[in-house]
Amino acid sequence: MNSPLRLGIAGLGTVGIGVVKIVQAHGALIARRAGRPIEIVAVSASSRKKNRSADISVYAWEDDPVALARRPDVDLVIELIGGENGAAKALVETALKNGKDVVTANKAMLAHHGQALAEAAEAAGRTLRFEAAVAGGIPVIKALSEGLAGNRIERVMGVMNGTCNYILTRMESAGLPYETVFEEARQLGYLEADPNLDVGGIDAGHKLALLAAIAFGTRVDFDNVHLEGIGAVSIDDIRLARDMGFAIKLLGVARMTGRGLEQRMTPCLVPETHPLGQLQGGTNMVVVEGDAVGQIVLRGAGAGEGPTASAVMGDVIDIARGLRLPTFGEPAADLTVAAPAAVSAAARWYLRMTLLDKPGALARIATALGDSGISIDRMRQYGHEGAHAPVLIVTHKASSDDIGDALARFEATGVLVGDPVALRIEDV
Amino acid sequence: MNSPLRLGIAGLGTVGIGVVKIVQAHGALIARRAGRPIEIVAVSASSRKKNRSADISVYAWEDDPVALARRPDVDLVIELIGGENGAAKALVETALKNGKDVVTANKAMLAHHGQALAEAAEAAGRTLRFEAAVAGGIPVIKALSEGLAGNRIERVMGVMNGTCNYILTRMESAGLPYETVFEEARQLGYLEADPNLDVGGIDAGHKLALLAAIAFGTRVDFDNVHLEGIGAVSIDDIRLARDMGFAIKLLGVARMTGRGLEQRMTPCLVPETHPLGQLQGGTNMVVVEGDAVGQIVLRGAGAGEGPTASAVMGDVIDIARGLRLPTFGEPAADLTVAAPAAVSAAARWYLRMTLLDKPGALARIATALGDSGISIDRMRQYGHEGAHAPVLIVTHKASSDDIGDALARFEATGVLVGDPVALRIEDV
Repeated sequence: MNSPLRLGIAGLGTVGIGVVKIVQAHGALIARRAGRPIEIVAVSASSRKKNRSADISVYAWEDDPVALARRPDVDLVIELIGGENGAAKALVETALKNGKDVVTANKAMLAHHGQALAEAAEAAGRTLRFEAAVAGGIPVIKALSEGLAGNRIERVMGVMNGTCNYILTRMESAGLPYETVFEEARQLGYLEADPNLDVGGIDAGHKLALLAAIAFGTRVDFDNVHLEGIGAVSIDDIRLARDMGFAIKLLGVARMTGRGLEQRMTPCLVPETHPLGQLQGGTNMVVVEGDAVGQIVLRGAGAGEGPTASAVMGDVIDIARGLRLPTFGEPAADLTVAAPAAVSAAARWYLRMTLLDKPGALARIATALGDSGISIDRMRQYGHEGAHAPVLIVTHKASSDDIGDALARFEATGVLVGDPVALRIEDV
Repeated sequence: MNSPLRLGIAGLGTVGIGVVKIVQAHGALIARRAGRPIEIVAVSASSRKKNRSADISVYAWEDDPVALARRPDVDLVIELIGGENGAAKALVETALKNGKDVVTANKAMLAHHGQALAEAAEAAGRTLRFEAAVAGGIPVIKALSEGLAGNRIERVMGVMNGTCNYILTRMESAGLPYETVFEEARQLGYLEADPNLDVGGIDAGHKLALLAAIAFGTRVDFDNVHLEGIGAVSIDDIRLARDMGFAIKLLGVARMTGRGLEQRMTPCLVPETHPLGQLQGGTNMVVVEGDAVGQIVLRGAGAGEGPTASAVMGDVIDIARGLRLPTFGEPAADLTVAAPAAVSAAARWYLRMTLLDKPGALARIATALGDSGISIDRMRQYGHEGAHAPVLIVTHKASSDDIGDALARFEATGVLVGDPVALRIEDV
């Protein structure tokens, strides 16, 4: 048997303990698969005494996680501290400098410092991998950077925040408004300490930026991910969309267009017959489209002890086997700086508004659309009582600029009650 | 730039030409990803002059595919000839012996000779990979043997013959009997020259046997895959199953049980709400369940030029990058010989039969079930004209032995008209 791969684990929360459990439970199995034993040597966390569901007393302990990076008996550091800066970043930098490989689940750190860290790994001749940072247990980084490496990638899409998908599907199934389900999710512990990371789309936006870098060979560019959260999605929109055959999802989309790199994390309508439209609850899904392979759909748990630890161990076993890949699939120096696309690709749009119930109101809206160069696929005016008429329009393909123009014209008609809702329909 | 990886391609049918096109179209992209250029040096096929959709005149030509394995200017042989023996096997054996790596899409060859070829590859210190042999463009071999390598795999399932899934979904959508849709599929060119490879489940059974070997660390054992084709599935069963919330799929299932390795490729009912139940047309789906990761679902094109060539190129790029994995994820010598499970795990069953419409008929069937130790979940007797009453039963969990016993008791009641239908309901 070859020499063991010796791990230092920083962070013993849910995922860290999940990794410990896998190594403890499957030592022999993993050694056969990896061609060498994989052993935990040392660990670090905020408290040594905390009650944990795995025995860590047999491992060396470091109060300072960065000390793991300096131990001569550690070959590979697993960073599960989290946070885009601070101890996590210091640990990864020190580990690489000291000739350790690194596996991390830290999407925020990579979304902000991915290029610098990838360069540091290459300069040190070490490997930095992050399967667990995107879509939990789904091996999507591997699929994209290895299995589909023969393809020019055309689009990467995904539902990558389980909490948001839970909220949206629960709103529909229970007929509850956003605020109520948000509160439920908070009480169930589904939300981050800063809930905006979830419902504002930031967490999912980090993941999308990482996927885009691999898909298009570009430097991670989280700052140019167009982010819209789910806070403005109403139960009415969810129901009306369903009525037209669509589901509303917080959908991330990255594509390279003639006008630059488009990265969006926004509520979108998707056909209810597509796997994306059928995705319920906290499950994640990533869709990869390549010029040769067509559309590949990957579905699985996006978070949790077992799934995330499974992804960490996939990276660890790769490294134990000797697989040395650049962090984003290509040498960091080759990654290009993509110009962000100012206008997103044309799409159909779902428009909902309330009109004053007076003669000519609908005609003015239809005219405004026509004046913006947008044609109508379907329009429905719903039955109502009182002076306000709910109207729903599905347009033919239009750019986000054209839609912005139309919304301004709607405003000028004077027949709108409140603000209209405009949601993109992503063709899948 | 590092030295190029030089390919010899044997077989220039759909997939071979797909590989040529990818190498020609994406040379620079692939070189960046692989860290070295990938070049085609020599090709071989049955006819040099055949009209092809890619220019092969720039490559050296060999009339005898095995000659590719002897060329000093070839590093890696791509075997796309097909067939479990003959030229394909001779080529792979010679290539390995001569120090070439091998990538193949040949499921029949590996299902029958996988162990010997894996041993030959290891003895020669070369790599033999076969992503394209299972589920076309879906990178499932990679997901199972690498991304999920930290898991004890609990079950692998899949719809892995697009033609069968096309036939079953077309029967339902068009309301046509099996024979008619089979004939349509034949005329559309969807069927193998020997259609039993498709509709008899043999092709999909080959794939299942390969997945099982990786999942459970066992020697490929195609002979013990329990095969039932789709020829006996009727439009009535498809409709009645739907009526109960199920879809009928040709589903492969492999699991390691206390009684041994269970491998089945049979028509099964799956819930219509699960991605397996929603799979339409020729698309493939593989479901992998691991103890840490839970359930991962992979969906994509299972055949065709682009998807299959994408899978071949994934393997080629892996090898160019230096990834050297045992053929089945563990050293061939470590793969165990699994005892085949004689009885499949307990499941709910769908039973359909026609009874003589006379007093006590249904009671006799219910009694027979009870005497076999099987309890009833749901039972429906459908309205009818004439002397024959259609009856549908969904049982609680029962073993295949118990069901066999019940079917014998049904026969003995004397109230059956024709043969009853018994289909397993796979819990997903």
